[in-house]
Amino acid sequence: MSSETKRQLVIIGGAEDKEGDCIILREVVRRAGGTKARIVIMTAATELPREVGENYIRVFKRLGADEVRIIDTESREDAASSTALKAVEEATGIFFTGGDQARITSIIKDTELDTAIHKRFSEGIVVAGTSAGAAVMPDVMIVEGDSVTNPRINMVDLGPGMGFLPGVVIDQHFSQRGRLGRLISALAQQPAVLGFGIDENTAMVVTGDEFEVVGEGIITVVDESEVVHNNVDEILRDEPLAFCGAKLHILPHGYKYDLANHKPILEGRSVAETAGVS
Amino acid sequence: MSSETKRQLVIIGGAEDKEGDCIILREVVRRAGGTKARIVIMTAATELPREVGENYIRVFKRLGADEVRIIDTESREDAASSTALKAVEEATGIFFTGGDQARITSIIKDTELDTAIHKRFSEGIVVAGTSAGAAVMPDVMIVEGDSVTNPRINMVDLGPGMGFLPGVVIDQHFSQRGRLGRLISALAQQPAVLGFGIDENTAMVVTGDEFEVVGEGIITVVDESEVVHNNVDEILRDEPLAFCGAKLHILPHGYKYDLANHKPILEGRSVAETAGVS
Repeated sequence: MSSETKRQLVIIGGAEDKEGDCIILREVVRRAGGTKARIVIMTAATELPREVGENYIRVFKRLGADEVRIIDTESREDAASSTALKAVEEATGIFFTGGDQARITSIIKDTELDTAIHKRFSEGIVVAGTSAGAAVMPDVMIVEGDSVTNPRINMVDLGPGMGFLPGVVIDQHFSQRGRLGRLISALAQQPAVLGFGIDENTAMVVTGDEFEVVGEGIITVVDESEVVHNNVDEILRDEPLAFCGAKLHILPHGYKYDLANHKPILEGRSVAETAGVS
Repeated sequence: MSSETKRQLVIIGGAEDKEGDCIILREVVRRAGGTKARIVIMTAATELPREVGENYIRVFKRLGADEVRIIDTESREDAASSTALKAVEEATGIFFTGGDQARITSIIKDTELDTAIHKRFSEGIVVAGTSAGAAVMPDVMIVEGDSVTNPRINMVDLGPGMGFLPGVVIDQHFSQRGRLGRLISALAQQPAVLGFGIDENTAMVVTGDEFEVVGEGIITVVDESEVVHNNVDEILRDEPLAFCGAKLHILPHGYKYDLANHKPILEGRSVAETAGVS
């Protein structure tokens, strides 16, 4: 079994429900082993690690996790602590909180802690993240960028991500912040051809090479496999991008997507006869 | 020559430049006959007809139009006035201002004035509109709706438009207000398969069956001709839409689109070899 077929990710677009049914965080606990779950909360992204971390401890405990602990890394030295490494080695689930995604990569990437997390991930434990914790999932991440504007090259900063889901671009708070422009800008500027915009209180639940949408909003999929033209090589940094021939899918709760073949999985759903008709 | 091959429209996403080069309003004046232009400003959409109308008189005069006058219709009676009808009969260009699109249709649609404008339009004069004046261009228009949210059925109200560009959906202030959700919602709920999101200070300049993009931002094209699945017939009004297999094009200044064949016109531009590559 390759690591791809085993991988489990819960990638959340931010602002997930923590008071009600918590269907997304419930899924994290279930995949971490349910009442036997040992979850580690990674608070590197936030400047309020105690406040944010304890909130998640409370929710995960309420949902029945056996053990929930915070790893707060303020520096790369913290990311080499034996306590942190031991916690990860014993964890059945890892959860990255929101905050600033650049803090996660600058503090954790290429440390012993990073290696330990990837080792557990490749062994099949679930890795989850929300907002900034979702942004870091690909190998190239959106560090920051403008919302509610058209795509231009200079509207988005890209940087290395944590690489749990390589070859894609992920953006979060997607519909709520009007981020189609920055998703397309990021997609046009790097080799990945699949862009995913994840809404608030919505998650991409990855199992191997498929994901399922869970939550209140949608995942917007922009697939540039068949793009016939873009002008990235011709324009200056502040000029608007052109981008012709992408595929667009809007996937709500319960819909599945095949990451290997770049297709929504529509088995059992009406196909074609409803196309273009209301 | 059919009316389709003759038609001229300048459909503006709102907030067009009125102080600088005015490349969009300049195009309106040019198509209306340049220094021989006789332009009628339709202020039905706005509750500040004098203020808004006089602003356009000033700009169009500055750009060299020969004659610019306001037709202010506060009621359907006003839309039957012989002065208004005569002005339209003599006009070489008609310009609908911004405001509330429902005011335009409720006051003007199916009046003598509407007939007169359509007659002049079919004879080849340019019809232009910005913001609310852009929204009314199709036969089915977005009356109002929510921005920066995912598509649902109840997020948008549709109603009859003025029908200058039938068979499409138009939304305006598009990237600036994060309106992908409402464009898709509108598209999924009515027979048209082409949705156009026009940015601020950006225009769709239609000549016959083609348009060219003019201005600062982009036109976002969502083409549902090949949509393989949507769930419009299955969901309740407040549940999120699914929409799989649409085509997406991002077209900046200078790009052209073939309305009859649903394709960007890429003659002379790099094709395919840049696809999916940065």
